[in-house]
Amino acid sequence: MRTRYLLLSALLVPLGAVRADEGMWTYNNFPKDKFKARYGYVPDDKWLEHMRLSSARLAGGCSGSFVSEGGLVMTNHHCAHSCIQQLSTPDKDFIKSGFYAKRPEDEVKCPEIEVNQLVEITDVTDRISRATQGLAADKYNAAQRAEMARIEKECAQADPGAKAGPGDKADKIRCDVVSLYHGGVYNLYKYRRFQDVRLVFAPELSIASFGGDPDNFNFPRYDLDMAFLRVYDDGKPARMSQYLRWSPAGAKEGDVTFISGHPGGTDRQLTVAELEYHRDVMLPDRLLAMAQVRGELTQFMMRGPEEHRMAESDLFIVENGYKAARGRWETLLDKSFFASKVMAENELRAAIARDPEKQSRYGGAWDAIARALDEQKKLRKRLAFIERGSLAGGSELYQLARGLVRAGEELAKPNDKRFREFRDSALPAIKQGLFSSAPIYDQLEIQRLRLGLTRLREELGTDDPFVQKVLGKDSPEGLARRLVEGTKLKDVALRKQLFEGGQQAIDASNDPLIQFVKMMDPEARAVRKQFEDNIDSVLKKNHELIAQAHFAVEGTNTYPDATFTLRLSYGQVKGYEENGRMVKPFTNLAGAFERNTGKPPFDLPPSWLAAKNKLDLNTPFNFCTTNDIIGGNSGSPVVDRDGRVVGVVFDGNIQSLGGNYGYDISQNRAVVLASQAILQALDRIYGAERVSRELRGGH
Amino acid sequence: MRTRYLLLSALLVPLGAVRADEGMWTYNNFPKDKFKARYGYVPDDKWLEHMRLSSARLAGGCSGSFVSEGGLVMTNHHCAHSCIQQLSTPDKDFIKSGFYAKRPEDEVKCPEIEVNQLVEITDVTDRISRATQGLAADKYNAAQRAEMARIEKECAQADPGAKAGPGDKADKIRCDVVSLYHGGVYNLYKYRRFQDVRLVFAPELSIASFGGDPDNFNFPRYDLDMAFLRVYDDGKPARMSQYLRWSPAGAKEGDVTFISGHPGGTDRQLTVAELEYHRDVMLPDRLLAMAQVRGELTQFMMRGPEEHRMAESDLFIVENGYKAARGRWETLLDKSFFASKVMAENELRAAIARDPEKQSRYGGAWDAIARALDEQKKLRKRLAFIERGSLAGGSELYQLARGLVRAGEELAKPNDKRFREFRDSALPAIKQGLFSSAPIYDQLEIQRLRLGLTRLREELGTDDPFVQKVLGKDSPEGLARRLVEGTKLKDVALRKQLFEGGQQAIDASNDPLIQFVKMMDPEARAVRKQFEDNIDSVLKKNHELIAQAHFAVEGTNTYPDATFTLRLSYGQVKGYEENGRMVKPFTNLAGAFERNTGKPPFDLPPSWLAAKNKLDLNTPFNFCTTNDIIGGNSGSPVVDRDGRVVGVVFDGNIQSLGGNYGYDISQNRAVVLASQAILQALDRIYGAERVSRELRGGH
Repeated sequence: MRTRYLLLSALLVPLGAVRADEGMWTYNNFPKDKFKARYGYVPDDKWLEHMRLSSARLAGGCSGSFVSEGGLVMTNHHCAHSCIQQLSTPDKDFIKSGFYAKRPEDEVKCPEIEVNQLVEITDVTDRISRATQGLAADKYNAAQRAEMARIEKECAQADPGAKAGPGDKADKIRCDVVSLYHGGVYNLYKYRRFQDVRLVFAPELSIASFGGDPDNFNFPRYDLDMAFLRVYDDGKPARMSQYLRWSPAGAKEGDVTFISGHPGGTDRQLTVAELEYHRDVMLPDRLLAMAQVRGELTQFMMRGPEEHRMAESDLFIVENGYKAARGRWETLLDKSFFASKVMAENELRAAIARDPEKQSRYGGAWDAIARALDEQKKLRKRLAFIERGSLAGGSELYQLARGLVRAGEELAKPNDKRFREFRDSALPAIKQGLFSSAPIYDQLEIQRLRLGLTRLREELGTDDPFVQKVLGKDSPEGLARRLVEGTKLKDVALRKQLFEGGQQAIDASNDPLIQFVKMMDPEARAVRKQFEDNIDSVLKKNHELIAQAHFAVEGTNTYPDATFTLRLSYGQVKGYEENGRMVKPFTNLAGAFERNTGKPPFDLPPSWLAAKNKLDLNTPFNFCTTNDIIGGNSGSPVVDRDGRVVGVVFDGNIQSLGGNYGYDISQNRAVVLASQAILQALDRIYGAERVSRELRGGH
Repeated sequence: MRTRYLLLSALLVPLGAVRADEGMWTYNNFPKDKFKARYGYVPDDKWLEHMRLSSARLAGGCSGSFVSEGGLVMTNHHCAHSCIQQLSTPDKDFIKSGFYAKRPEDEVKCPEIEVNQLVEITDVTDRISRATQGLAADKYNAAQRAEMARIEKECAQADPGAKAGPGDKADKIRCDVVSLYHGGVYNLYKYRRFQDVRLVFAPELSIASFGGDPDNFNFPRYDLDMAFLRVYDDGKPARMSQYLRWSPAGAKEGDVTFISGHPGGTDRQLTVAELEYHRDVMLPDRLLAMAQVRGELTQFMMRGPEEHRMAESDLFIVENGYKAARGRWETLLDKSFFASKVMAENELRAAIARDPEKQSRYGGAWDAIARALDEQKKLRKRLAFIERGSLAGGSELYQLARGLVRAGEELAKPNDKRFREFRDSALPAIKQGLFSSAPIYDQLEIQRLRLGLTRLREELGTDDPFVQKVLGKDSPEGLARRLVEGTKLKDVALRKQLFEGGQQAIDASNDPLIQFVKMMDPEARAVRKQFEDNIDSVLKKNHELIAQAHFAVEGTNTYPDATFTLRLSYGQVKGYEENGRMVKPFTNLAGAFERNTGKPPFDLPPSWLAAKNKLDLNTPFNFCTTNDIIGGNSGSPVVDRDGRVVGVVFDGNIQSLGGNYGYDISQNRAVVLASQAILQALDRIYGAERVSRELRGGH
């Protein structure tokens, strides 16, 4: 690791320059010159528009693509995992057996998936800046939030398309003001919104995630990590004017590849003080909590097959998050890497300091951020446990109760005065969550809440007045059991009633979980206010200044940190060196059979064992590319220079985890399921011709 | 935290000076002048000898004291926890109900407790130095080990006392060469050894550890963390010529207090490179592993009451270790504290550099240590998993198999050529462990081994050749189950037979666990050799130089880092300030009743509830003192200036956890169970007059 980052740091000239293949580019700032210099041609605007409109955003945190005129969406199995699990029952476990809707009418609605298509980008930086100009930190946040809510509401109401169809007219449009470059730029992203999304096909988990946690983030790899969904409009498959066609030949080594998707977040533009906060506080806090949850889930799942089924998806999320966070953390612990970050910041600050006007405008921003972080260190546990739900350990019932209690109070206010998550434009997503029919398991809920309450007491202290108020003379286990067994919130009709009845219904409710959340809410709101007024707004305000300082010194020909907005990255199919030996960029189907031990997580499913003789074992299975991606890109289409599908991204290699803080072309790789393997599996293993025909029909 | 260490760092003049009440002093270097300057008198040599001979070492990692002529030993409940659990059965759970031997013949032998009394200290620095003089790192270790083994053997054989009694004559004497000041001084510690140690009295866990993990390391506190054992000699209670008498009045605020016990280890004299290794590598590794085990044990115990009983002691150990390591880690993450360490090292190095001769002798030591640590970073996972047993996740059966396999090979060699843990003087302890009758639970063993093997694969990688060799086509769970269910090593007679049959018996054994360990042993030995030759010996050699550099600059009027050898610390009964408010030094029995919620871990046992009216609720329960102690001191007697018992140490406050790296009199406190509460509980709650009479009989 050391050597690699030392090299990076030496390459940091000119200051802030973007290296070959680095970058998660916004569609309205694709680096045509840079790309041309490296690859000898330029994708034109029509090509970019086609890619943008063919890209799908899975609002829960993944990417996908439209791959047929009839609304077929390709994504990863692990992006559809929750849906597949929610549709399963003790008798029909689709996680284990896979799912295939043989007939159109067999496609089943996912309770909580929303898909978006980005139809328009508008710059609104001036409007936002005017709204917050000259405001002190504690006014800044409210003013910004209010202006964002207004812009979004205008956008949704103005759209003619929004008026078609029988539903709530605004529900088919989603307008989000997004902050880019940490506030250097504000854009309005307008999406077509699909909330009727149905499951079409998913293979068995054992091949979708072959190698399980041990192979997660590893390469070479052998995973059929795919799923197909379909977006519906007014009860019928949606018609897509733009969608991706299939590449006849697939990718080969050295080919240029584009990945269009939604990287969830990067932290490449953080200050050194923020990186120290990540390294010394945030990541350790998170890792320790996840390690404990991981242990609990592992043993919980051993209680029996039904407990295994209930908690499997939770464990996947925790193990995945743990490995990712650990990779990031190790990058920050690398002294040479960290030194390169310090050097880059020092250079920018020195460049600013050379110009007295710039210095007076931007020069104080870094120290202001460091001071805010000192405050955050003190407040962070109260914020996490009291306001952000850590006290509930991920309990779904708690989240529902909290959503209902907050909706009661917030929705009574005008749109621009609410918490941002309750603005009008967020309501469709809120309702989808609150009225979801996804099953809730008491046994698991009790354990989640018990652990959350135990950790609350541990982290805030037994004698903390808030802890005393919450637990009283009860134990975490006793309280968790009483709340979960006493609440009626599993009933969707009751949740609708409480939501529609507003504050009054909430006040009248004698549901113990509603009362529990209500009892804590004043304290939670107070902690949030403290955070927003004294920390968050200081960070935002000063990051805006730093972004402007960057622009002033380096210009705007760069990409913003990822924010779960649509980005295009480019690269090449290419292996890499690891421990002194070359890792080839392709695996093939034969490799999966060689790696099979018959024991989880290295057990090929029966369907594969049975079909072995029908397969062309030389077919490419997974491959890796130099594209700069990160979590959230899962499910992104990988296309060739003609925009044709050569695969679907499902992972990065272990070396890419540090990509959160910086990109290194010698090591970072995106890991892709090859298009040829997708078709071969659909045709020869699963007999899912209805899907493969639709994919082929495209070209 | 910040402010407090900034202060410390400002006080670091003169360089290396020891602050008021700081220090875990060896008995042959008690700082009489320093003590007199502060407290106005000097404990004389007779007093010191009396204290030394009245102090007990529990070889498993705790302290205690001899409190009657008849061999009664006072220690903590948590030091006897394993024994109490090992003596319990599903029908008789002494952890839950407590234990009291009403008659002498009811006292029951603890399967694995060894008690030592330190009878003599001899300096052997010259002998050790001569043996290793001028040797390169890879020869150094073997030469030192051989000389130590020779010295220890001579010591045990020469002792006339050793010849008395019917057992193996050397078994009643234990001779250990101990390294002090990281090799600046080598001493021979000669102990009287007791391996027949019986349980006399223990209260219920719920009051011994009232407040459980939430209150662990906290103060104010309300714990009756005590247990009484008795040492036997040739089947009869041992006669002790020296033992501690009871204080009639107990301690009061401001009183001087001495604590004589065995602090397990401190790291105050480590180099900055070593502290960085602790902060960035060792402690995080350990914490993450423990957090996961904690989660697993918590859920495992929920399977049922019997599983709860099996794993309770494991969970205590893990939670205690986790909290302790986290406190240490947070101290190292404190930037001001760390800066004070850097400053101290820089000052010492500068002082050395001013003298060319000193510089040429000692000047390279710090960098040599840093380089060795770079190697250790690379080797550490292989060392932990392959040689040090992490792959077995704490499985007891694995440890037995490993002990037998290694004993077979090592005991065939001459004493001075063996691994140090197999030297002749260690044999009694080895046999006690290998032939212990403590119960072993298959269900728990499978889970331990499963987790260990899972972590092995995770940390070394699925494709690592050693991992492939161990797991083959098996899963961690499958292999763990096969080994635990297949081995016969639960049978003590079989273990004796394999031990006595030596290498030949091991080679002939078809026990699957023996074969498993044998298969891995060549790789394990190779990793150990790599560590000893290239890392450990470099660290030792260069720490010897740094110790000498310290002596050369600062003289020898200081104390060595703790090494689980007997130390005397002094201090005062004193409260402290926390978050701006004073914490008083005493709690009383009434407080325990106020804190009782009736729900674990804040549930007073029925015996207490029933006896409430008989108690004087104003009786002091726990108190805190400024004595400088650390883990391993648990069970140490706390005495007044006359050497009379005023309590038994069972904990440090949360602020004292950083004591591993440095002592701060404003915050660090030892937490003590008061002598008055001990008598009152024995008399009025438990009716254990046989014990209290024996304690009182002393004066």
